Amino acid sequence: MNDTHIVSGFDRDLESVQAHIMKMGGLVEQNILDAAKALRDRDEELSEKVRKSDKAIDALEELINEEASRVIALRAPTAVDLRVILSVMKIAGNLERIGDYAKNMAKRNSVLVHMTPVEGARTALGRMAREVQLMLKDALDAYIQRDADLAQEILERDREIDQMYNALFREFLTFMMEDPRYITPCMHLHFIAKNTERMGDHVTSIAEQVIYLVTGTMPDEAREKADFTSRDPEVSDLK
Amino acid sequence: MNDTHIVSGFDRDLESVQAHIMKMGGLVEQNILDAAKALRDRDEELSEKVRKSDKAIDALEELINEEASRVIALRAPTAVDLRVILSVMKIAGNLERIGDYAKNMAKRNSVLVHMTPVEGARTALGRMAREVQLMLKDALDAYIQRDADLAQEILERDREIDQMYNALFREFLTFMMEDPRYITPCMHLHFIAKNTERMGDHVTSIAEQVIYLVTGTMPDEAREKADFTSRDPEVSDLK
Repeated sequence: MNDTHIVSGFDRDLESVQAHIMKMGGLVEQNILDAAKALRDRDEELSEKVRKSDKAIDALEELINEEASRVIALRAPTAVDLRVILSVMKIAGNLERIGDYAKNMAKRNSVLVHMTPVEGARTALGRMAREVQLMLKDALDAYIQRDADLAQEILERDREIDQMYNALFREFLTFMMEDPRYITPCMHLHFIAKNTERMGDHVTSIAEQVIYLVTGTMPDEAREKADFTSRDPEVSDLK
Repeated sequence: MNDTHIVSGFDRDLESVQAHIMKMGGLVEQNILDAAKALRDRDEELSEKVRKSDKAIDALEELINEEASRVIALRAPTAVDLRVILSVMKIAGNLERIGDYAKNMAKRNSVLVHMTPVEGARTALGRMAREVQLMLKDALDAYIQRDADLAQEILERDREIDQMYNALFREFLTFMMEDPRYITPCMHLHFIAKNTERMGDHVTSIAEQVIYLVTGTMPDEAREKADFTSRDPEVSDLK
């Protein structure tokens, strides 16, 4: 058993785990789109489909973790290979969280269909979800192709998601102040917006893993959070 | 180099990583308490302290991940030992997330101090934070002592946190409907309540890791989520 054999054995194992990551990513992308569509069309059946599909996503994460553990135990990878296999587990964890947020969107939708519709907001939320799904697609492509430039681009696009969230936060406040009937639906829509923004953070975290794998260093810790609602003077003026 | 030597080498390494987990846990517990105290006393200085301390928490997570990776590369642990060392990384990840939520509470507090105070809510939030901190303390004790019974108890206590959150959610809605000046502060307080509830979920996840380590199986997937706000008919009636 020579070195080449060990290396190609590891590569083969890795490829199999990565195929599951891509499958998991595909299901998560679909769930983001379906949850947003269900929200737009007030479609309870589609919400139910999202909730069911999330179980398959969770099962895939478990499978990936088991496979990765087995590769570590079997191949005893060192340095770079170990970093790669640990990153697979982290990415699976991020995908699982994004899936959870999509499921939560679907659950809240089943409540929202019984409430006063908040026109406009659902379209904006749909755009935000679509943008996150495209970012996720690119992040997974960047991972498979080990493309640090594409990953870097994703970090920048996450700022746009943060800005979309900030705009929605202000819009919800305005709605709620105008008419108390909007308060409860806007609380739910606000959570959906915040959760979509959090999906973007998890996509960013996948992109950061890619950069770490390719360059060996994490991107600037200094990447400033662009959710200003917890410190924006404009927001705090609305007292 | 015989088997005994390898085993005790792994144990020594593990002890060192676990010491860092306990240190990290202590900092996170303190930050939960400080963030809640800052909220109660409208104390901006204490909020600032929490935000600074969170950097130390993040640095510890990185250190723990590096140490754990080194142990895997060096000792090539199999089966049970590998499960233990991977659980360390997962627990560090949970602690980091809990720390993030405490930091977010401190950040929102710096905005809230400039707004109309919402009496009563801050006391309830303080009780909730205190309960989560105690659960975290017990979860880490359960981890160190490999005490599955104590861990199981934590899963049950998390339901109380969920109920506290549900009660607050309704209280915030009532405040907001009574007086529009409460809308913005209640949006922030609502996020703080939801984030505290999420801290409880991460503590639960640590407890589940303990049960997995001791028994080899994850506790019942069927543990029902007790946050009813995304499906409670009572809430959805408030349209």
